[in-house]
Amino acid sequence: MELEKIPVGILGATGMVGQQYISLLNNHPWFEVRYAAASPRSAGKKYSEAVYGRWHIASNALAANYADHVGNIVVEDANDVSRAAAAFKKGNCSFVFSALEMSKDETSALEEEYAAAGIPVISNASAHRWTSDVPVLIAEINPDHADIIPIQKKKHGWERGFITVKPNCSIQSYMKPLHALAAAGYPARRLIVNTMQAVSGAGYPGVSSLDMIDNIVPYIGGEEEKSENEPLKIFGSIESGVFKNAELPQISAHCNRVPVVDGHTACISLEFDGKKPSLGEIKAIWAAYKGLPQDADFPSAPKQPIIYREENDRPQPRKDRDADKAMAVVIGRLRPCNVFDIRFTALSHNTVRGAAGGGILSAELLKYKGYL
Amino acid sequence: MELEKIPVGILGATGMVGQQYISLLNNHPWFEVRYAAASPRSAGKKYSEAVYGRWHIASNALAANYADHVGNIVVEDANDVSRAAAAFKKGNCSFVFSALEMSKDETSALEEEYAAAGIPVISNASAHRWTSDVPVLIAEINPDHADIIPIQKKKHGWERGFITVKPNCSIQSYMKPLHALAAAGYPARRLIVNTMQAVSGAGYPGVSSLDMIDNIVPYIGGEEEKSENEPLKIFGSIESGVFKNAELPQISAHCNRVPVVDGHTACISLEFDGKKPSLGEIKAIWAAYKGLPQDADFPSAPKQPIIYREENDRPQPRKDRDADKAMAVVIGRLRPCNVFDIRFTALSHNTVRGAAGGGILSAELLKYKGYL
Amino acid sequence: MELEKIPVGILGATGMVGQQYISLLNNHPWFEVRYAAASPRSAGKKYSEAVYGRWHIASNALAANYADHVGNIVVEDANDVSRAAAAFKKGNCSFVFSALEMSKDETSALEEEYAAAGIPVISNASAHRWTSDVPVLIAEINPDHADIIPIQKKKHGWERGFITVKPNCSIQSYMKPLHALAAAGYPARRLIVNTMQAVSGAGYPGVSSLDMIDNIVPYIGGEEEKSENEPLKIFGSIESGVFKNAELPQISAHCNRVPVVDGHTACISLEFDGKKPSLGEIKAIWAAYKGLPQDADFPSAPKQPIIYREENDRPQPRKDRDADKAMAVVIGRLRPCNVFDIRFTALSHNTVRGAAGGGILSAELLKYKGYL
Amino acid sequence: MELEKIPVGILGATGMVGQQYISLLNNHPWFEVRYAAASPRSAGKKYSEAVYGRWHIASNALAANYADHVGNIVVEDANDVSRAAAAFKKGNCSFVFSALEMSKDETSALEEEYAAAGIPVISNASAHRWTSDVPVLIAEINPDHADIIPIQKKKHGWERGFITVKPNCSIQSYMKPLHALAAAGYPARRLIVNTMQAVSGAGYPGVSSLDMIDNIVPYIGGEEEKSENEPLKIFGSIESGVFKNAELPQISAHCNRVPVVDGHTACISLEFDGKKPSLGEIKAIWAAYKGLPQDADFPSAPKQPIIYREENDRPQPRKDRDADKAMAVVIGRLRPCNVFDIRFTALSHNTVRGAAGGGILSAELLKYKGYL
Repeated sequence: MELEKIPVGILGATGMVGQQYISLLNNHPWFEVRYAAASPRSAGKKYSEAVYGRWHIASNALAANYADHVGNIVVEDANDVSRAAAAFKKGNCSFVFSALEMSKDETSALEEEYAAAGIPVISNASAHRWTSDVPVLIAEINPDHADIIPIQKKKHGWERGFITVKPNCSIQSYMKPLHALAAAGYPARRLIVNTMQAVSGAGYPGVSSLDMIDNIVPYIGGEEEKSENEPLKIFGSIESGVFKNAELPQISAHCNRVPVVDGHTACISLEFDGKKPSLGEIKAIWAAYKGLPQDADFPSAPKQPIIYREENDRPQPRKDRDADKAMAVVIGRLRPCNVFDIRFTALSHNTVRGAAGGGILSAELLKYKGYL
Repeated sequence: MELEKIPVGILGATGMVGQQYISLLNNHPWFEVRYAAASPRSAGKKYSEAVYGRWHIASNALAANYADHVGNIVVEDANDVSRAAAAFKKGNCSFVFSALEMSKDETSALEEEYAAAGIPVISNASAHRWTSDVPVLIAEINPDHADIIPIQKKKHGWERGFITVKPNCSIQSYMKPLHALAAAGYPARRLIVNTMQAVSGAGYPGVSSLDMIDNIVPYIGGEEEKSENEPLKIFGSIESGVFKNAELPQISAHCNRVPVVDGHTACISLEFDGKKPSLGEIKAIWAAYKGLPQDADFPSAPKQPIIYREENDRPQPRKDRDADKAMAVVIGRLRPCNVFDIRFTALSHNTVRGAAGGGILSAELLKYKGYL
Repeated sequence: MELEKIPVGILGATGMVGQQYISLLNNHPWFEVRYAAASPRSAGKKYSEAVYGRWHIASNALAANYADHVGNIVVEDANDVSRAAAAFKKGNCSFVFSALEMSKDETSALEEEYAAAGIPVISNASAHRWTSDVPVLIAEINPDHADIIPIQKKKHGWERGFITVKPNCSIQSYMKPLHALAAAGYPARRLIVNTMQAVSGAGYPGVSSLDMIDNIVPYIGGEEEKSENEPLKIFGSIESGVFKNAELPQISAHCNRVPVVDGHTACISLEFDGKKPSLGEIKAIWAAYKGLPQDADFPSAPKQPIIYREENDRPQPRKDRDADKAMAVVIGRLRPCNVFDIRFTALSHNTVRGAAGGGILSAELLKYKGYL
Repeated sequence: MELEKIPVGILGATGMVGQQYISLLNNHPWFEVRYAAASPRSAGKKYSEAVYGRWHIASNALAANYADHVGNIVVEDANDVSRAAAAFKKGNCSFVFSALEMSKDETSALEEEYAAAGIPVISNASAHRWTSDVPVLIAEINPDHADIIPIQKKKHGWERGFITVKPNCSIQSYMKPLHALAAAGYPARRLIVNTMQAVSGAGYPGVSSLDMIDNIVPYIGGEEEKSENEPLKIFGSIESGVFKNAELPQISAHCNRVPVVDGHTACISLEFDGKKPSLGEIKAIWAAYKGLPQDADFPSAPKQPIIYREENDRPQPRKDRDADKAMAVVIGRLRPCNVFDIRFTALSHNTVRGAAGGGILSAELLKYKGYL
């Protein structure tokens, strides 16, 4: 049965998100890592050598380590697309997850090269999030946005390749709760969001320990804009072959870095755009929330995408981030807001649901829809 | 000159806030600690013995340790008001700072006993914050609220004693900026506040380390209500001998505990009640802000009560909490809000400005006004 | 097949170690939790209610949460041994794991009462560690010490009950490496050990966050004595029906508390008692080390009890504590010592291998040997 | 009187140790910063601009911020020695503190260039620690080592310039206690040292926060060798114009990085070389310990170089590192060692006593001796 798995490649395979992909794909029922590319200094080394002394995933944690066959893969130079094309021909790289850590322009151009070479790219990078025909996918929320792929391919003249991206990790905790409410007839008009984000979001070495012992940092470059704008594209629609943003909700974000390894927490005050559900209704809506990943039983889908905890001091990153394979959003403290309608606290695992796990779920969606 | 200092007592002298009082009053030009009371288990011991192995103030930090004469004070039982009355007669206790750590009802009753016995009480406890004739003082903002003291004394038949309190530490970071703006003609209508509060706010042992390593806790019992309501009393007025709350601003608070030793940080989104100043005007207003403590040059007054930092990643608790003897508010990140008018981040040292330092500043105000 | 599992009880079921037992025993192939006892204030509540708001195990971490049937168990008063005896008669409590958090004398007496009532006690408490006929078991090292059980039973006139204990969590990281070397003919004469211990070792709330942010504490009450003396009993022998301590190795321990959630790290300098192996030999000895748990394939046995990592900066608590179900010791940095013969760093998970996991492995040993 | 202060320069003025120098020299009675040099990217900027957004010293902490005149100094390129020579001629740079962060070879060569250009160099870098005629100074221990300076100058043909260095920060906590004992007739033969070192020792950004949340790292490159060997040079003597190492004590060091901002803690087991003092004698020896800095009352000298605390859980980095201007060593837990003679725990502030403060104290020594 092994032989029938879809062979996948990882771009940026030795970085932190790349390692997370390798870990989460160990024993994946549909996909198997057969190709790994990284910066020139890793190229030519066996994967196990390339990450020696730089492997950041805790052993035997949620994610396994990498399988032996992955350790023996010889890492390629990610800049050399012809290597991936050759691997594709040999049946070793049907598509790639991109966890490239380059400049925006370099990433943008390189991902297009892969697509042009016939290799679909499911990207964690932010480079193409505002490209008008590239979908920003959250599998439960906007699976239909994947249907821009034929348009995208046609526009570029790409026969087999295409590009999809995932949104910023900071919005994962509030997008599904918002979507659940909107789908039940209670769209949000305005929200003020305060995030307390984990250091793993900045990669390795990322944030200095001198900034994270007995301290918080009330600023993360570019994060507030992403937290405010990306939801509008995800809630938007395809019109005339390009994405048109939703007009609401209006979001104001304060993004803070806190001394937490994994798990972004957000405190949200929300005003509805129209009628207002009761707190009881909201909890019922969240508990019942399901999307295509659940309906079609994708391997990486959380059984319950939104988990509500009644204890007054939850969610907490260390205790709740791993809920349901670290793919669920955990919410708590729903109560009336003194200024808007409601307020609550929501948590999502930033390197799993917000990065590699979310990318894998997108790939599962794309396979289900026949694009892979 | 030593002899002319006002002799003061500390109730709850061995606890965390009590220790902070002892430290900050070392070499104070107006006050000298001559009386210390605590729980019965400390009573009868020399102060130095009572805090042996439990002294939490870092040596040679901002605050000094305690003077030798304080170490030799024999601790009294705080429940025995007659001891304080006797000390008063001997000239050793002209008034007390209360840092009692009892239940609300016990504290409330005991502080009244001290007042009835002729000992003015400047309290850090929350017990009397909503007593209608007890002022909640922030020396820069509502020094005139002290003028309810004669009414309070008369009502209770107290000849010399009275009670004043300080507000909750969580509001210190945003009260002065709001007051400065209101005083300049720009009152706030609504604000949504997200606090990230230091563990010292919970006393010792307080918050478990298991909750503060690789974690945050999105809940502090009672803190959100205090953060929303106390500002209305402080911005209120004396009418018919009691305090009448202000009607605005409407505040919605999310209070979180984060792994920081000292320094409460707040992220604020604010809507003005009427005309809106430019960002430049706001910075100018904050820079020029002064109150009675500055005008009259009180010993514990920060020279500049509001410090604005232009760097995009400030204020940070570890780097900014000690600004101007830990008595200033440090603000940064002023920018337009996507939902309200403006947003910014503000920081205040919770155990100095928000506790013992704030209490001492109130005492300086009361002495200046002739109430001590 | 469910029905054939051995029904077990947990004393102190709502505490931190008790919760760890409940988690680790979820889906255990041999044992099933059917009885839970705790302090009087939990007695009478369903287990799920008793731990509501106080459940410390991260969801979906290594350990699962508890099964539904455990949540529905009505908690009994641990002081009332007759309840356990009744549960035994009903087939719900064949033996107990003791995670009692009482004084040493109370624990000692109560555990004896359970044994006298016919309920074998596998204890995490330290009360009986120096009782002359109670074995301190580490399943790989001294499985034969269990054979004092018939002597113990006879001495007390206990028909079915008996008591075994596990050693202190601080010694787990160096006992197996020492045993492996001694078994290969290289016993240690002297060692100087420096531990850096996790806060979970102190239970909940345990260590104050004020002591663990930007700080370490160079003292843990009683820990150094345990770290020095318990190894001598474990390496000792049964003579005339009681344990006789080994004479070596001589150990000097410095025990420190550090801001780590789980995982005790020890730095060890060691002098051999006689001939000295090469570093290569030592690594080979450790890699080949196996004991009865591995030979008999106990469910909780790590496949490789000692894992050596070649990277120069390992083991690290966060990355290595969970190795092999958190039951393995992870070692690194083996190098010559400038003063003794060798030095190295070793790590063990204190609440799994060092507490509940170690207790379960002992129970597996006792069942294998026919004592349960 | 200002005009009579000796004008000093800082090499590497914008880095972490450079900033510490600037802070500690604010209002220094003998020295005044008039020259600042750093990497080419800072050259040409005003100092206040060069460190904007990168100033790491907490405001109003022990150290002040920098004086206005320092903020206005135009930073020079540290590689261009002619700039310093010109500043010397103008009376702005009588000598330099070197906090260069270059490779060992580059630092070594550049510091020699400064010396050759007539600028004495008091260096924090490790480059020249093993140069046979460069003294490694701890002002209390080996002030006479400064007397190699004339020999050094003569050998190189330097008329005015010379080089001195300070030892590694990891040894500061145990060198003075060892010296005190040796001076009292109780030299140490062997010691095993375990350090738990603060992250500021690695500079900024230095250690990743991902390695310091819920974690420790049992390795610091090169640190153990320095901790073992540098003491032998410091305890050594000048023979035939070069330093000859002492033969004892033999030291074995385990160096660990822990989540502490400032303050290196060491646990020490010690064997005496000959007669053994009682614990009481040792405490008396430490309490009475003084050196030239105390006798001659140098401005940066701690009044009591060794402070012993009787509490069983001290020293702790956060509470004790700032003792006596952060220039004292704080010791606790003196007790018999189970393997050697005694054991104890010692703490020293690594960026003050172990870096800039130690350098300034050396400069005070050199001025006192007439070398500056």
